[in-house]
Amino acid sequence: MTVTKSTLATVPPPRCLNINNINPHIKEAKYAVRGELAVKAEEYRVRLSHGDKSLPFDSVIFANIGNPQQLDQKPITFFRQVLSLLENPVLLDSPEVLCSALGYQQDVIDRARTLLAEVQSVGAYSHSQGAPIIRKSVANFIEERDGFPANPNDLYLTAGASSGVSTLLNVICNGPDAGVLVPIPQYPLYTATLSLLNANCVPYHLEEDKAWGTDANAIRNSLAAARSAGVDVRAIVVINPGNPTGASLSPEDIKNVLDIAAEEKLVVMADEVYQTNVFVGEFTSFKKRLRQLQLENTTKYDDVELVSFHSTSKGMVGECGQRGGFFELVGFDPEVVAQIYKYVSIGLCPPVIGQCLMELMVNPPKAGEPSYELYQKEYQGIRSGLQQRALALYEAFQQMEGVECQQPEGAMYLFPALTLPPKAIEAAQAEKRAADEFYCLRMLEATGVCVVPGSGFGQKENTLHFRTTFLAPGTDWVQRIVKFHSDFMAKYK
Amino acid sequence: MTVTKSTLATVPPPRCLNINNINPHIKEAKYAVRGELAVKAEEYRVRLSHGDKSLPFDSVIFANIGNPQQLDQKPITFFRQVLSLLENPVLLDSPEVLCSALGYQQDVIDRARTLLAEVQSVGAYSHSQGAPIIRKSVANFIEERDGFPANPNDLYLTAGASSGVSTLLNVICNGPDAGVLVPIPQYPLYTATLSLLNANCVPYHLEEDKAWGTDANAIRNSLAAARSAGVDVRAIVVINPGNPTGASLSPEDIKNVLDIAAEEKLVVMADEVYQTNVFVGEFTSFKKRLRQLQLENTTKYDDVELVSFHSTSKGMVGECGQRGGFFELVGFDPEVVAQIYKYVSIGLCPPVIGQCLMELMVNPPKAGEPSYELYQKEYQGIRSGLQQRALALYEAFQQMEGVECQQPEGAMYLFPALTLPPKAIEAAQAEKRAADEFYCLRMLEATGVCVVPGSGFGQKENTLHFRTTFLAPGTDWVQRIVKFHSDFMAKYK
Repeated sequence: MTVTKSTLATVPPPRCLNINNINPHIKEAKYAVRGELAVKAEEYRVRLSHGDKSLPFDSVIFANIGNPQQLDQKPITFFRQVLSLLENPVLLDSPEVLCSALGYQQDVIDRARTLLAEVQSVGAYSHSQGAPIIRKSVANFIEERDGFPANPNDLYLTAGASSGVSTLLNVICNGPDAGVLVPIPQYPLYTATLSLLNANCVPYHLEEDKAWGTDANAIRNSLAAARSAGVDVRAIVVINPGNPTGASLSPEDIKNVLDIAAEEKLVVMADEVYQTNVFVGEFTSFKKRLRQLQLENTTKYDDVELVSFHSTSKGMVGECGQRGGFFELVGFDPEVVAQIYKYVSIGLCPPVIGQCLMELMVNPPKAGEPSYELYQKEYQGIRSGLQQRALALYEAFQQMEGVECQQPEGAMYLFPALTLPPKAIEAAQAEKRAADEFYCLRMLEATGVCVVPGSGFGQKENTLHFRTTFLAPGTDWVQRIVKFHSDFMAKYK
Repeated sequence: MTVTKSTLATVPPPRCLNINNINPHIKEAKYAVRGELAVKAEEYRVRLSHGDKSLPFDSVIFANIGNPQQLDQKPITFFRQVLSLLENPVLLDSPEVLCSALGYQQDVIDRARTLLAEVQSVGAYSHSQGAPIIRKSVANFIEERDGFPANPNDLYLTAGASSGVSTLLNVICNGPDAGVLVPIPQYPLYTATLSLLNANCVPYHLEEDKAWGTDANAIRNSLAAARSAGVDVRAIVVINPGNPTGASLSPEDIKNVLDIAAEEKLVVMADEVYQTNVFVGEFTSFKKRLRQLQLENTTKYDDVELVSFHSTSKGMVGECGQRGGFFELVGFDPEVVAQIYKYVSIGLCPPVIGQCLMELMVNPPKAGEPSYELYQKEYQGIRSGLQQRALALYEAFQQMEGVECQQPEGAMYLFPALTLPPKAIEAAQAEKRAADEFYCLRMLEATGVCVVPGSGFGQKENTLHFRTTFLAPGTDWVQRIVKFHSDFMAKYK
């Protein structure tokens, strides 16, 4: 059926679904990390791979997304050896597997046997919360990290941290009055999921001039304003180390958030997926800080509800595509926990190979074990590579006119502020684009480097930023940005 | 803080979240497949594995869930060999891998290289819709199956079929008036997800006495009743082959559904995850039937919106834990498609190893290729094993007093009807349980066989059923059911 514009008024639309009658909350949700710029970058990549010579660059650099293995980060050998045995357990019965040429050490084989004895097959559904043996390893890891006990029954394995965040927001948001405090700038999963749930995002601004720290007053002010506007604020999201900011919170910062949570009865959602990507100081988990405070103070913190998220996608592991993750529940009402269990069981179970990878991540080879030395070498090599590239990028930003960047403390990102000339702002307006989006689009077209405009994460009014990962190898692409920026500033002077 | 009952009226609850203030739609959702019986069965399994001799059985049979590899179904060698190389690509450079003892044939190695060349690493995020090369293979599979073209851009790889179903229901349901026609009995994913979305489940009853066929009049009557009650019915779910019924729809049945969809503007959600588990007649996809009708009739079917779901979890593949799946969109408005893309991109990407498994499933070894013979032998072995066990179970049910079962046509389940003595119904009422739940619980306690009461799937008033898979090997457990049933009937005579 062909419907011409003039007949639209009288002829009913041919289909059931159209943009104006689907779930309106999906329409409202925004997710810039995989938006227009990412789609355009992928088009360029395909053109280059087909031999297109008309572009002013010879490679696309996906600095828009923390996807280390797309950018040539090699997986850690021990992890992948065990996973290969889990996928093909027949190898465990081949004497050749132990031959040195394949590189499988005895601890690799032992670990594969241990995991298989419990999960039976990575092709079988596991327990909805994740395989018990794996949750036990995660609990051990948390105990060792924090110095406080952890219970496997409080742990839920997930398909990456994203699905865990979605689960918790689904439980917490009970209607259009519900609200959740979200840091600005933030990873857009939070705002997007709150849009989907028709709940209120209650933004609190991070302090750019204090290395993107968390300001207790900013949180209290946002909370008070939202509550007086009738929003039932129920939770606070903290991303530590920060995405997109790269900031790492001090124990004092964490205490300030827990104080507010205890006083105001807010669920704390601690996104701690970058916990091993800390360059300055040491990572402190919200769980550890909470347990310390509970020891110090007899009642104030007793009933704080905390959920902490972790992932196999980040850190030195970088196994995004395997979709491993977990969350730990602390202080939740058992009846609420039962509902969370039912909710996750509707999705059956998280990917079992991703669960197994989580086990390997939290329980890597120990000193004296045959795979230890190689594991350490690979792990530290990735770590120092990331730190070096973060610094190189930071130094380049410091030399660029109109660019200000906080020193990198952790995570995988830098989030520099831009001061653009008025003519650039006008040119953006003429294209009906935000100025940071205009800048990032020109950068992509000129250099093949794909970054994400600050507006995709939220930023204070009248400020402009962009987020770039520091994952791409080499420094050539940093120089591409430097040259582009200088040309751009000259053009719009 | 300790709150005693008497102070509850004056002291506010200590936590933010409690059972009465979380998302009420999560509380309402029901999901029996992993409910009380499944939890109890797992407890028995753990007790037996710890050497408990006090139970009247020596093994637990999980006949409650279609989880073939938990029940000793062996994975197909070709699939797992390729996946092991994808997890550990270093093996591709070892001359030993080609040595006959490990069993890797040249086509296994070639396929791993082809997939890796495209996805780069199974640890990298892929395109949100799934890797393009894999969607191309799925499109080829659909073309070959149906004899009509398929476009990789219309395909979305998913983490099992469940996540695809959830995506589509999220898009379709636009508020509390929205409704979706769901067959009764059904797989409870549908009712659970509609509860979560606060949308209306509009049930239509399948015809038990016509081998659980789909009755067009029943659909039209339900639709009319729901619309006159103010429900905006937007879609119809069809599960073919049926879960829990095991029924397989004829091309005529499918046409009847497509007629209703075309006339009443309903999105057709075709759950076709059991498409290779067909024992009687041949599987016809909704897409094929729709394309045939579109060729025959110039306008009526032009704008039918169809989404079809498939999975790596069922069929002869049975790789539930790998979480592979896809859906194909047919006839959707491009603006709606763009929203679906944005929605799935918030979850980043489906598990990449599951995507690769999907590629292997739809593009298995062909005649003349080195892995073909073994693949065929394994595939056909699983197929005939399933069919034999289905028949053995069916025959056992035919001999049981008060049990009536339709002949198995497909899927992995039988759904026999029970007629229980009045005393059994009274005993169930005394325990405040539905009679079928009471029966299934007694069966589990007496035999270790875990099945799901019909009430978990929906059934006509005053009828009782249970669902059992026919996946467990051997016939011992069937005899356990026969003996239990006879004792049960005698006890409550």
